[in-house]
Amino acid sequence: MNDPLVVTEKSRLRRMHSRGYFDRATINGILDAQPLCSVGYVIDGQPYVTPTFQWREGDRVYWHGSSASRALRNSKDAKVCLTVAILDGFVLARSGMHHSLNTRSAMLFGTAVKVEDPAEKLEKLRTFLDGLFPERYDTLRPDYEQDLKATMVLGMDIAEGSAKVRTGDPSDDEEDYALPIWAGVIPVTTHVGTPIPDARLIDGVKMPDHVRNFRIG
Amino acid sequence: MNDPLVVTEKSRLRRMHSRGYFDRATINGILDAQPLCSVGYVIDGQPYVTPTFQWREGDRVYWHGSSASRALRNSKDAKVCLTVAILDGFVLARSGMHHSLNTRSAMLFGTAVKVEDPAEKLEKLRTFLDGLFPERYDTLRPDYEQDLKATMVLGMDIAEGSAKVRTGDPSDDEEDYALPIWAGVIPVTTHVGTPIPDARLIDGVKMPDHVRNFRIG
Repeated sequence: MNDPLVVTEKSRLRRMHSRGYFDRATINGILDAQPLCSVGYVIDGQPYVTPTFQWREGDRVYWHGSSASRALRNSKDAKVCLTVAILDGFVLARSGMHHSLNTRSAMLFGTAVKVEDPAEKLEKLRTFLDGLFPERYDTLRPDYEQDLKATMVLGMDIAEGSAKVRTGDPSDDEEDYALPIWAGVIPVTTHVGTPIPDARLIDGVKMPDHVRNFRIG
Repeated sequence: MNDPLVVTEKSRLRRMHSRGYFDRATINGILDAQPLCSVGYVIDGQPYVTPTFQWREGDRVYWHGSSASRALRNSKDAKVCLTVAILDGFVLARSGMHHSLNTRSAMLFGTAVKVEDPAEKLEKLRTFLDGLFPERYDTLRPDYEQDLKATMVLGMDIAEGSAKVRTGDPSDDEEDYALPIWAGVIPVTTHVGTPIPDARLIDGVKMPDHVRNFRIG
């Protein structure tokens, strides 16, 4: 799990910064903590950034959507950049310049490959859903074949990229620590609220543990 | 504030979807609710997606970073895509296919322009900081000229783009509503924690209102 990523010029550039980390465990931890990601792709020289959910299986990352989606059709067999960014806090320093953010972010590069085999695609989607909500998939109305056809799953190797992690107090200029200015961190976290049953839920259906125990972040 | 955005092919495509909104007020509301954004840019055909903070002034959006930043140097005078995505909830349906997310997202396209004038740049940075923490800028050690030189501010018009908003219960197939399957929404929000004073804060410095009252989301 700790194999170093391939070091490219991109990651070498980042390696010079003290906040860069390249071990696989750091990147996996960020991917596993936050499904929301941003996928970048290019159409006729114009960059697009589409928010979607990702999930990891070993050393591959996957995302999905409608087969008709422009984002997915234009990402397939193309170069993409998948970024996850988790905001952990606002860092308030004694000068404007040193204000910062506590964040964990991962940026992955690769070529997106479509999962073609229907059985494999179904298995990926099950893994995605059960990863968020353990054992939920088997409680659902089974997928129709046409629903699966209408869904595209893309994946890529976690092989090239970088992570950036910042934690802790501000880093002020040494002489500024003597100034009577409030400095510190305002932490932010993702809060999971009380689940809201569907207005049309039939009587007597209990809230499953995978809903009650859901956590993220 | 409700001027319609220019409708391009990109937004026209999205207009066909029921979840697309194009009025300026919707887009402004999303930008103002969440500073964290993802900026997409292209280097030699490879898309990059860099997380950063954005702020809005009227009908322009700005972001900033180190003048040495590869992300900023390659975004300047180039086509970019700036996306903000706010996750409001997980939508659990009665089939895998209809699981969804409650989200608010905005995707903006344009050419990033560098703020060249030093006085204007300083004013933008002040607006950014005071937008998050009202009246904080004047309490800080003033910026040094070299700090300002080391900082690049980019901006672009909010003129082309789209927003996507989903709220509420799952949309299941009609016949599935009779199934004894739990469905509903798990809401998520951004929680602001108790501010943590810097370990080196000098004695007697009180927490200002702009820290105590800070809210986001």
